Amino acid sequence: MTALSFTVKATEGKARLGRIETAHGPADTPIFMPVGTAATVKAMTPDSVRATGAQIVLGNTYHLMLRPSAERIARLGGLHRFMGWSGPILTDSGGYQVMSLSKLRKLTEEGVTFQSHIDGSRHLLTPERSMEIQDLLDATITMAFDECTPYPAERQTVAESMRMSMRWAERSRAAFRPRPGYGLFGICQGGVHGDLRAESVAALTAIGFEGYAVGGLAVGEPQDEMFRVLDETCPLLPADRPRYLMGVGKPEDIVGAVLRGIDMFDCVMPTRSGRTAQGFTRRGEVNLRNARHRDDPRPLDSACSCPACTSFSRAYLHHLVRAEEILGAMLLTWHNIQYYQDLMAGLRAAIGEQRLAAFVTDFHTTRGLGDIEPV
Amino acid sequence: MTALSFTVKATEGKARLGRIETAHGPADTPIFMPVGTAATVKAMTPDSVRATGAQIVLGNTYHLMLRPSAERIARLGGLHRFMGWSGPILTDSGGYQVMSLSKLRKLTEEGVTFQSHIDGSRHLLTPERSMEIQDLLDATITMAFDECTPYPAERQTVAESMRMSMRWAERSRAAFRPRPGYGLFGICQGGVHGDLRAESVAALTAIGFEGYAVGGLAVGEPQDEMFRVLDETCPLLPADRPRYLMGVGKPEDIVGAVLRGIDMFDCVMPTRSGRTAQGFTRRGEVNLRNARHRDDPRPLDSACSCPACTSFSRAYLHHLVRAEEILGAMLLTWHNIQYYQDLMAGLRAAIGEQRLAAFVTDFHTTRGLGDIEPV
Repeated sequence: MTALSFTVKATEGKARLGRIETAHGPADTPIFMPVGTAATVKAMTPDSVRATGAQIVLGNTYHLMLRPSAERIARLGGLHRFMGWSGPILTDSGGYQVMSLSKLRKLTEEGVTFQSHIDGSRHLLTPERSMEIQDLLDATITMAFDECTPYPAERQTVAESMRMSMRWAERSRAAFRPRPGYGLFGICQGGVHGDLRAESVAALTAIGFEGYAVGGLAVGEPQDEMFRVLDETCPLLPADRPRYLMGVGKPEDIVGAVLRGIDMFDCVMPTRSGRTAQGFTRRGEVNLRNARHRDDPRPLDSACSCPACTSFSRAYLHHLVRAEEILGAMLLTWHNIQYYQDLMAGLRAAIGEQRLAAFVTDFHTTRGLGDIEPV
Repeated sequence: MTALSFTVKATEGKARLGRIETAHGPADTPIFMPVGTAATVKAMTPDSVRATGAQIVLGNTYHLMLRPSAERIARLGGLHRFMGWSGPILTDSGGYQVMSLSKLRKLTEEGVTFQSHIDGSRHLLTPERSMEIQDLLDATITMAFDECTPYPAERQTVAESMRMSMRWAERSRAAFRPRPGYGLFGICQGGVHGDLRAESVAALTAIGFEGYAVGGLAVGEPQDEMFRVLDETCPLLPADRPRYLMGVGKPEDIVGAVLRGIDMFDCVMPTRSGRTAQGFTRRGEVNLRNARHRDDPRPLDSACSCPACTSFSRAYLHHLVRAEEILGAMLLTWHNIQYYQDLMAGLRAAIGEQRLAAFVTDFHTTRGLGDIEPV
């Protein structure tokens, strides 16, 4: 019985070009995984998600356990079939969202009891139950159950939270049902404290996982703090396993993290921004609600191959946003996911051709130009 | 300079199989035209609209004149380019919506002054201005400007309203700028009064139009009243011009109207229903919000080729509706437009093969079976 595998195909500095092979097909790293919280990448069909080049999508344990329930999805053939996504699916453990979304939480060594934010029903989430739910969902990549440490927090609080997460990681490993081409990832905690991060990595590697995530970042700390933690933590992580920076992030965060040896990313930013009139372009972010776009016949980004850019003008996107048309959210979401996928494809190609430094310089230069191209 | 043309290719009883040739390509009749009010068929990309087999889409003069304005769309290359629809576009005249949506209306022989429901700005809509707007939009098929007669109304009110609409029809014809492959349609009024309808048809045919619409129906009258008006009116309309029943309707309304000689239809029902969890199927309408679907692995309609039916279960559609996910509106709208297009394709094939009577019997029988197929 062989778990999912990971191969590093090339490196440049600390950056890695790799491939994950899973029961549901391959995924090339560095990879950005669109978030499909409630069994849908919001405002996109699975076909359009695939068309952007995305290879893995996320599902959220917290949302899916409450609605429509993991048992129901299992009866219907699992999450892949339910949501029409045949590629790999990574599910989070529920630990993060139970702390940010649920009501009347009570945290003990056993786990978390809470009330649903949807209907007030009471639930218990433990490492064992999280593993069971992710197994029912048929997640290709299962995340260990952890506590999301508050930020900012006292060092002692961070340490105690991290140590409980490490005990939960051990219980997660014990409860996880191994299957060929599937895998369980551990999650490193420890806040911004290098020694706690090191202690966490040591605990996780002693248990052994198919991949290692860095959790508890992108929670409000400055970018240089995040990068410092990655500088200190990534070298401690096993080189032969994928490294996943959870919940990150902005394009420049991703580029900086790839330079520090991270392989996997997820973030709601491209999808959420697509529903709030924000478009990502090579030259920076654009607010399509702004009146300066209303007569602009040019595409959002002339270098982009997505339908929003090849078929429509900024003036049309502006009109859709102002008229609150669903198509506006559809097109901007598609575009933003395409932007993120193109960025990752660019990073992969650059590492493969040993020109990552030049790619990154060009990335930052172009983003500094302002979003409007000369006519 | 030749206007758009219409050819009747086959008839069965009063039903006609035909083809309209326009500057923006052909359209096969009987045809259903999805409504693209604000320069978008709500929740669909133009590619997906095309994929259903739709050949003409509607635009709404009232909405577009207010936002983003006809002049802006003209500067941006016309409505086809603006909304990414290269096929024929039919625009209404604004007469209907100005009466149902605007504020502080004042109706005179000259036209209608009103306040925008969006920003309160004041506007004047006349036959001449309506023709100018539809020309700026580059409508393939322009509708004459008419007054939407209230229903129910006294016969005298209906007669006076109809006669003013006929004077407006003459002013519309005079103001319309003819172009090759484009056309202007007159609109018959007269409520449910056969003699007034006949008077209206006589006035319109004396002016001469590229097509003739039946307006003022589907405004609340019973179906048999509508069918009686069509029975009386259709034989009076020129046989060599397309006949358009505005704002209709339910599938059974369309089938009955095709049997009475109508060639063209539009209605917000499939798109609006798609945003309120209603799905049209061969076996009747289905409310996907209903809890009986939550564990149902079957497609909405096993005979349908749309993505909602080929890739997803009723259980998934139910989940999307309950979770208020945009994808629910996207998939159900796509399905409903597909249902309407398949219905029209079925009607066209049946007329072409002289088996319309059997088709209609089967249509009604199947809709009476209830929406759930035996397992």
